[in-house]
Amino acid sequence: MTTCIAIDAMGGDGAPKIVFDGIAEFIRTHPHTNVQFLAFGQENVLTSLLTPALRKHVTIKHAEEVITGQLKPSLAVRIGRKSSMGMAIDAVSQGVAHAVVSAGNTGALMALSKIILKTFDGIDRPAIPALIPSDKGCTLVLDLGANIDCSAENLVQFAVMGSAYSRKLMNIENPSVGLLNVGSEDLKGNQIVQAAAHFLRDHPLVNFHGFVEGDDITKATVDVVVTDGFTGNIVLKAIEGTVRLFARQLKKSLSDSVLSKIGALIAQPSLATFKRFVDPRLYNGAMFLGLRGIVIKSHGGTDGIGFANAIKVADEMVKRNVIPDLQAGLEGIQ
Amino acid sequence: MTTCIAIDAMGGDGAPKIVFDGIAEFIRTHPHTNVQFLAFGQENVLTSLLTPALRKHVTIKHAEEVITGQLKPSLAVRIGRKSSMGMAIDAVSQGVAHAVVSAGNTGALMALSKIILKTFDGIDRPAIPALIPSDKGCTLVLDLGANIDCSAENLVQFAVMGSAYSRKLMNIENPSVGLLNVGSEDLKGNQIVQAAAHFLRDHPLVNFHGFVEGDDITKATVDVVVTDGFTGNIVLKAIEGTVRLFARQLKKSLSDSVLSKIGALIAQPSLATFKRFVDPRLYNGAMFLGLRGIVIKSHGGTDGIGFANAIKVADEMVKRNVIPDLQAGLEGIQ
Repeated sequence: MTTCIAIDAMGGDGAPKIVFDGIAEFIRTHPHTNVQFLAFGQENVLTSLLTPALRKHVTIKHAEEVITGQLKPSLAVRIGRKSSMGMAIDAVSQGVAHAVVSAGNTGALMALSKIILKTFDGIDRPAIPALIPSDKGCTLVLDLGANIDCSAENLVQFAVMGSAYSRKLMNIENPSVGLLNVGSEDLKGNQIVQAAAHFLRDHPLVNFHGFVEGDDITKATVDVVVTDGFTGNIVLKAIEGTVRLFARQLKKSLSDSVLSKIGALIAQPSLATFKRFVDPRLYNGAMFLGLRGIVIKSHGGTDGIGFANAIKVADEMVKRNVIPDLQAGLEGIQ
Repeated sequence: MTTCIAIDAMGGDGAPKIVFDGIAEFIRTHPHTNVQFLAFGQENVLTSLLTPALRKHVTIKHAEEVITGQLKPSLAVRIGRKSSMGMAIDAVSQGVAHAVVSAGNTGALMALSKIILKTFDGIDRPAIPALIPSDKGCTLVLDLGANIDCSAENLVQFAVMGSAYSRKLMNIENPSVGLLNVGSEDLKGNQIVQAAAHFLRDHPLVNFHGFVEGDDITKATVDVVVTDGFTGNIVLKAIEGTVRLFARQLKKSLSDSVLSKIGALIAQPSLATFKRFVDPRLYNGAMFLGLRGIVIKSHGGTDGIGFANAIKVADEMVKRNVIPDLQAGLEGIQ
């Protein structure tokens, strides 16, 4: 079966060039791929970027409007389906494409995806999950920035989605879920995490561990860590920054020494665990979890290699047929 | 001049034993110290812990009440000055002691310190600062958990206090201040950081850089990073956890190899940068910034070595005479 991926060719800092670079890079690194692309954007601009190698895989679809990075989601919704982003999402809704990838405005992508594709029953807002290295391999953390202000109900829904993702896509039988807080004692935290914990304690779909702290993410205390998008985004970037600082310091010590080559060789396995964090392009591409369709957000400032990785994530999600699995997980079907 | 430090001998998970272990450890590692201790708590219990070595340095002061870890700050305030914590803070207020150290209930310590010692003019709530490793050495981050819910005004006051601390205690001439957020663009974030940024843009005492992201802490983009105590606490612990995971992975690769000793030697300088984070006891002891007196909070679960470090921080702050300096900094005096 051919996989069809809709691309918002106008979204992102370097669009449309980096988007086409990304498609080309994906094709180059996946020479036997059966992926076809629908690239939405200004036809004349996109046509000029269509190299002979791309022509076999890419069909250009004209879109009149472009949603810029600074546009408020409410205004983006008005331009809506006339925009490259909206048309690309619509292709998934119509069943023409299996997934959509965009490096554009996160708020607009979330708002349009919710309107066009809808969320699963019982889910008000999609969340962005990420896998962070831990002692057991990795911890699933969500939300990583799709929702800046979250209610207790939102956090409970993230816990349900994180459980479904962990159970169905990571094959963890009864994933434990922790709520990120300033202490593990029941009395800690603000009213929102207190209320969310209250709901989660007897939730039928969540194996709730209780509150966890910042260092429990890398300690693998639980399988899934739930937090609001403000805290989650800052924590993810703080962890990335720390790994990169450590890597730079290590590299410096290694190059300072005459034994540098031996040292570098010895340190290699440690660095490998963190490789994705040292080069953020390699884990570019995050799914909006909770939508009835596959929407992959690429970082706005990425390059062709990063965009190719976001396409790879979309392709994998299509091949794994994640949407019915997630739906079953959210309904408590084992 | 003799320095006198008031000790809340009943505060913390392992109190009073670890508190006296801490005093003993401090005296052992500072044999020529001129520090005298006033230990507040239940006289009969404390007397039984008084070894001959301690007798020269410690005077026991009986306190009827103990503020437990789970007690709400509002109730702690009622027990107030009859408690070991309240009496120890009072010793600073009366000029009998130069500083107070407690490993007890953070919320109670903050509430009682505010009532007894008062805050500087223009400061509503004290904040806890911490130094986090960065490319330039370290970044000052506050608040690290004293204030879970913060208003825009609180964040502005933290920026003013962070600037004063950086200028007066770290000798940075015109410290740049960033507000932690999910993106660096002006439109990003929730209403609280938006309002705080608005006030900070023209603030006479703050060299405001704008919004910074999680990875800017280790990148040393600014000298001071301001955030609420909820986010700050989680970020600090997430960074600690990441460093420890990295250190464990590195150690594992090094011990897996026949060249382990050479590797360990080469990696030593990188690990040294993070040493404090790998052993949290070594940086135990955080000051409540904004009070008209030196109040040092030790981690509740620390041991004697950790408590000794909190005493060391108190001693340094007394010797550096920080309170008048901070006062001058807050008033914009260069």
